[in-house]
Amino acid sequence: MPRAAVVGTGLVGASVGLALRRQGWHVTGTDRDPARAERAREVGAVDAVGTDPGADLTVVATPVGAVAAEATAALARGPGAVTDVGGVKAPVVAAVGSPRFVGGHPMAGSEQDGVDGASADLFEGATWVLTPTADTDPDAYATVRAAVASLGAEVVALPPERHDEIVAVVSHVPHLTAAALVGLAAEEAGEDPAVLRLAAGGFRDMTRVASGSPTIWPDVCGENRDAIVAALDRLVAALGSVRGVVAAGDRATLLAGLERARAARAGLPARWARPSGLVELRVPVPDRRGVLAEVTTLATDLGVDIADLEIAHAASGDRGVLLLLVDPEAGARLRDGLAERGYRPSVAPLGRP
Amino acid sequence: MPRAAVVGTGLVGASVGLALRRQGWHVTGTDRDPARAERAREVGAVDAVGTDPGADLTVVATPVGAVAAEATAALARGPGAVTDVGGVKAPVVAAVGSPRFVGGHPMAGSEQDGVDGASADLFEGATWVLTPTADTDPDAYATVRAAVASLGAEVVALPPERHDEIVAVVSHVPHLTAAALVGLAAEEAGEDPAVLRLAAGGFRDMTRVASGSPTIWPDVCGENRDAIVAALDRLVAALGSVRGVVAAGDRATLLAGLERARAARAGLPARWARPSGLVELRVPVPDRRGVLAEVTTLATDLGVDIADLEIAHAASGDRGVLLLLVDPEAGARLRDGLAERGYRPSVAPLGRP
Repeated sequence: MPRAAVVGTGLVGASVGLALRRQGWHVTGTDRDPARAERAREVGAVDAVGTDPGADLTVVATPVGAVAAEATAALARGPGAVTDVGGVKAPVVAAVGSPRFVGGHPMAGSEQDGVDGASADLFEGATWVLTPTADTDPDAYATVRAAVASLGAEVVALPPERHDEIVAVVSHVPHLTAAALVGLAAEEAGEDPAVLRLAAGGFRDMTRVASGSPTIWPDVCGENRDAIVAALDRLVAALGSVRGVVAAGDRATLLAGLERARAARAGLPARWARPSGLVELRVPVPDRRGVLAEVTTLATDLGVDIADLEIAHAASGDRGVLLLLVDPEAGARLRDGLAERGYRPSVAPLGRP
Repeated sequence: MPRAAVVGTGLVGASVGLALRRQGWHVTGTDRDPARAERAREVGAVDAVGTDPGADLTVVATPVGAVAAEATAALARGPGAVTDVGGVKAPVVAAVGSPRFVGGHPMAGSEQDGVDGASADLFEGATWVLTPTADTDPDAYATVRAAVASLGAEVVALPPERHDEIVAVVSHVPHLTAAALVGLAAEEAGEDPAVLRLAAGGFRDMTRVASGSPTIWPDVCGENRDAIVAALDRLVAALGSVRGVVAAGDRATLLAGLERARAARAGLPARWARPSGLVELRVPVPDRRGVLAEVTTLATDLGVDIADLEIAHAASGDRGVLLLLVDPEAGARLRDGLAERGYRPSVAPLGRP
C-alpha cells in the first residue's frame, strides 16, 4: 500500500487526502490547527493524524508563504518525494532546492473553504501544473506525476519561472485589474451609487473576481512579486498604446487590436476538456423569472444532456444569452423545442475541436 | 393617438417601435437600408415606412456616428421632441444644440442584432439615461421622459458629460482592458496555447466582453475620446500605484485596497431591481454534466421561483457556485432538497435591500 502524507488539511489538502485514499493510498495528515487535522480524520480525508517518515509522497498544502519551510521539514523526515499545491512556484522551488521536491499547482478550487468543502472529485479534469527542473530526481517526478494523474488531473509540466509568468498574466494581474476597475467605478460614483446602474452585465462579469476574500493576495503578491510587476508593466504599456490609438482617432489600428483580442478569446481552452463533435446552442434570454429553469427543464424533458452552460451578458444592457454545449442531434431537438416556446435559439459549430 | 417616428430600425429602434405601438402610439419608421425598414413594418415594429413631420416624438436609433445629422434633420422636419439611443452623449448634444433634443441612452441590448432580435419587452426594468441640459425645453423633456417610462424603463437623468464619464469608466475602458488582458495572455502563450489552460474561470469571466464583435468600438471611442482617454489615464495611474505597493511588499496597503474593492463590488446594484426580502442561496457545484438542470429542475419541482441566477467561478480552478435569488421560505425548501441530494448549499441574506 503506497503511503502519503498531507501537510495542511484545508480544502485542497483534505481533497488530496480523500482522492488518494480512494486510489488505495494510506494517508497521514497534519495541520497547524490540530482540530482541523482531527476533522480531516473524521471526514475520511486522512487515515491518521500525524507525520509519516515512511511516506512515498508528501503533499504540502499550506498557504504559499509556509510551503518552503514545510517542504524542507518533510524532506528531512524521510526519503520520499515531496510536492506542494501553492500558486507560486519559482521562489519555493529555489528555496527548497532539493531534487526530491517537485513544485505543483492544481488549477482547482472551490467556493467553500476548508475541510468541509473537500471532495475526492476536486481534481477530476483539472489542469495540474508540475514544475520539474534540470535537478529534479526522475523517480521523485515519476511518483508525483503518477499520483496527480491518478486523481483525474491533466498534468502540464512547465519550468517554475514560466508557470509564475503565466499565472501573473492570466490570474494575478487580472485580479488586481478587476479590483482597480471597481475602485475607479466606486470613485466615479462618489456619493451617488445610483450611477452604477449604468454598469451593465459585462462590468459585473469582469469584476466578479474582485468580490472574493482578499486574504490570500498579500502572500501571492509577495511570492510572485517580480512576475506580477513585469506583467503589470506590460499591461500598463498595452493600455498606454490603446490610449494613443484612441487619442489619435486611429480607427483601423483600434479595430485590428480588438479583432485580435476577439480571436484570442475565442481560442481560450474550454473550461474543461470538451468531447469533440459538440455544437453550441445560443439562446437569447430575457431577464425574467424562471427562464433558466424553463430552458434546463425542457432540456431534461427532451433527454438533452447539457455538457456545458454559460450565461453571457450583452455588451450593453442586462439581457443575456445562454450558451449550451450539446451534441448535434440533441441540439437540434432542443432548438426546435425552444423555438416552439417562443425562444430564438441558434446553433453554431464550436470553433475548435 | 400620439405619433412617433423611429430613425433606424435595427434592434433598438425596432424594439422602441414595438414597445411604443403597444402603448398606443402610431409609429412611422425609416432606415438607411429600405429593406430593413420594410422588415420592421412586416414584424409590426412600425405602422408605416417613412418620415412623419407631425410626430410628437422622434427616436434616432442609428449608430452613434450618424445621430447628430439624423437628429438635426428630424428637428427640421417638424415641431416635436427628438431623442436618441446612442452610447455617447456630450458631443451629440452639443452638435445638435436644440432645446427640443434630449439625449438618451437605454442600458439595454440583446445578443441578437437587427430587427429580428427586437422585442417590445427590451426596456422592461432597464435603466434609461436621459441627458437634459439647462437649455432643454421642459415640454420636450416631459414628452421623452413619459414615453421612456411608459416602456417600463427606469429613467436616470444626468448631464451629458457626466454620462460619458461614467460609461467610459464602467463600460468603455473595461472593454478595452479586457481586450488588453486577452492580448497579453495570447502573447504569453505564444506558440503554445496549452499554457492558456492555466487560465481559470475567473479569467474567462473577465475577458468575455472581448469576445464580442468589435465593429461598434471605433465609433464609440471616436465620440467619447476625451472621457475614455481620461479614464484610461486614471486606470493606468491606479495600476501604477498597485505596482508600487506590490514591488514594495506593502501587504497592509494591498489588503486594504483589495478589501475596498471587494466592498465596492458587493455594493454594485443588482442586474435588475430586486424585490426586497429575498435571500441568496449559494450552491457550490462541480463541473459535471447535468448539474444545472438538476438544480433548476429541483427548484421547479419544489415550486421555487428563481428571481435571479448567476454562475460564479472560483478564483482558481473551474468549480463554480450557483447564486440563486429566492424568497426565504422557498430558499429553505430548496436548500433542504439540495442537501438531500448531496449538495452543500448555504443561505445568506442579501447585503442590500
